[in-house]
Amino acid sequence: MKIGIVGGTGDIGEGMAMRLSPVFDVIVGSREKDKAEAACEFNIETLRKRGQKCSLTGVSNQNVVDDAEIVILAIPYKHLIGTLETLCGFEEKIIISPVNPIEKRDFFTCVPPPEGSAALLIKKLLPASARICTAFNTIAANRWKLLDEELSYSVPVCGDDDNAKQQVMEIVNGISKLRAFDAGPLAASHLVECLTPLLLNIARYNKMKDVGIQFH
Amino acid sequence: MKIGIVGGTGDIGEGMAMRLSPVFDVIVGSREKDKAEAACEFNIETLRKRGQKCSLTGVSNQNVVDDAEIVILAIPYKHLIGTLETLCGFEEKIIISPVNPIEKRDFFTCVPPPEGSAALLIKKLLPASARICTAFNTIAANRWKLLDEELSYSVPVCGDDDNAKQQVMEIVNGISKLRAFDAGPLAASHLVECLTPLLLNIARYNKMKDVGIQFH
Repeated sequence: MKIGIVGGTGDIGEGMAMRLSPVFDVIVGSREKDKAEAACEFNIETLRKRGQKCSLTGVSNQNVVDDAEIVILAIPYKHLIGTLETLCGFEEKIIISPVNPIEKRDFFTCVPPPEGSAALLIKKLLPASARICTAFNTIAANRWKLLDEELSYSVPVCGDDDNAKQQVMEIVNGISKLRAFDAGPLAASHLVECLTPLLLNIARYNKMKDVGIQFH
Repeated sequence: MKIGIVGGTGDIGEGMAMRLSPVFDVIVGSREKDKAEAACEFNIETLRKRGQKCSLTGVSNQNVVDDAEIVILAIPYKHLIGTLETLCGFEEKIIISPVNPIEKRDFFTCVPPPEGSAALLIKKLLPASARICTAFNTIAANRWKLLDEELSYSVPVCGDDDNAKQQVMEIVNGISKLRAFDAGPLAASHLVECLTPLLLNIARYNKMKDVGIQFH
């Protein structure tokens, strides 16, 4: 099973690739293939120095969609529509959205699109057969990258396709100490997308760094 | 310092009274004073059998507002406007809102009023000098009542009056193992009020009971 990361040279995408590629076959995309290749070389070397083997290849974003069974959209919300418009071939794929429609005003807040959430906007933009799940919304880019630290967080997962959701939850549970929780259908994603601005506010007002969440 | 609970004979209010009254002076209100008195007698006896002393008195909801410096609105969202319309004297008081505008559709979701959150609706309904804070939104009624169990949860607190927020955070930190986190101004309360439907969905879809939250 191949996992692809669209926007894989961004802050979060790069961290995800470092955590996922020792466990799964990972391909990482960028608008420019060269950039993805260079990032992967650097990350493979970083992992090698730590004594970790990995399966990590840099390609174009379109190649990610073409070749991966599971596609993570590691794209900032503001670039979501623009990026998806340049790509095709999402039919039948499992799509993971960690995207949060966040704005910084006096404080961080959630400003969802008319569809209700980034996840439902993605659903509107992609073919009906794409099986979209929300996951990884609350893991900060810095935490992905701090490879010496375990990720001891809960990860709510939303989606309408039970089989896809099960596969996504298994991937989540395969990374560090992440623990997946079924958070309901895709239409419930706005409740998950609201978590990140809350965590950013808590970090800011309590002088903390990269606050995460656990359910129990 | 006297803490009052409006709606203190409801499920959550009663549990709060049991946890708060061994630590603080607590008065508990109901629409009918007799009902509040009876509930308090029962709760005092329960605590006495456990060897716990408490300061707990049953009064009317209006007496709660008159006599307490800090007033917790332990009211279901659907009764919020109706209850507040029957009460007066909130000037200068510290008001704690644990109220969540939740609806159960196919899943639990947040349906905020036009003001943006239950907290901002309360702000509109009460005099301008009332110092409103959001707190205790995510602690389930059952958990309040299970006195043998510690409450090991994080409690986000929103509010615009720094002194009031500080006092509320101290109260939170005085109960069991609750830990208060400053979650920003009152206008950020909608992010907190969205947590409870998320936790209810997680409980439902993962067959868990009374899911709570920790930030770290």
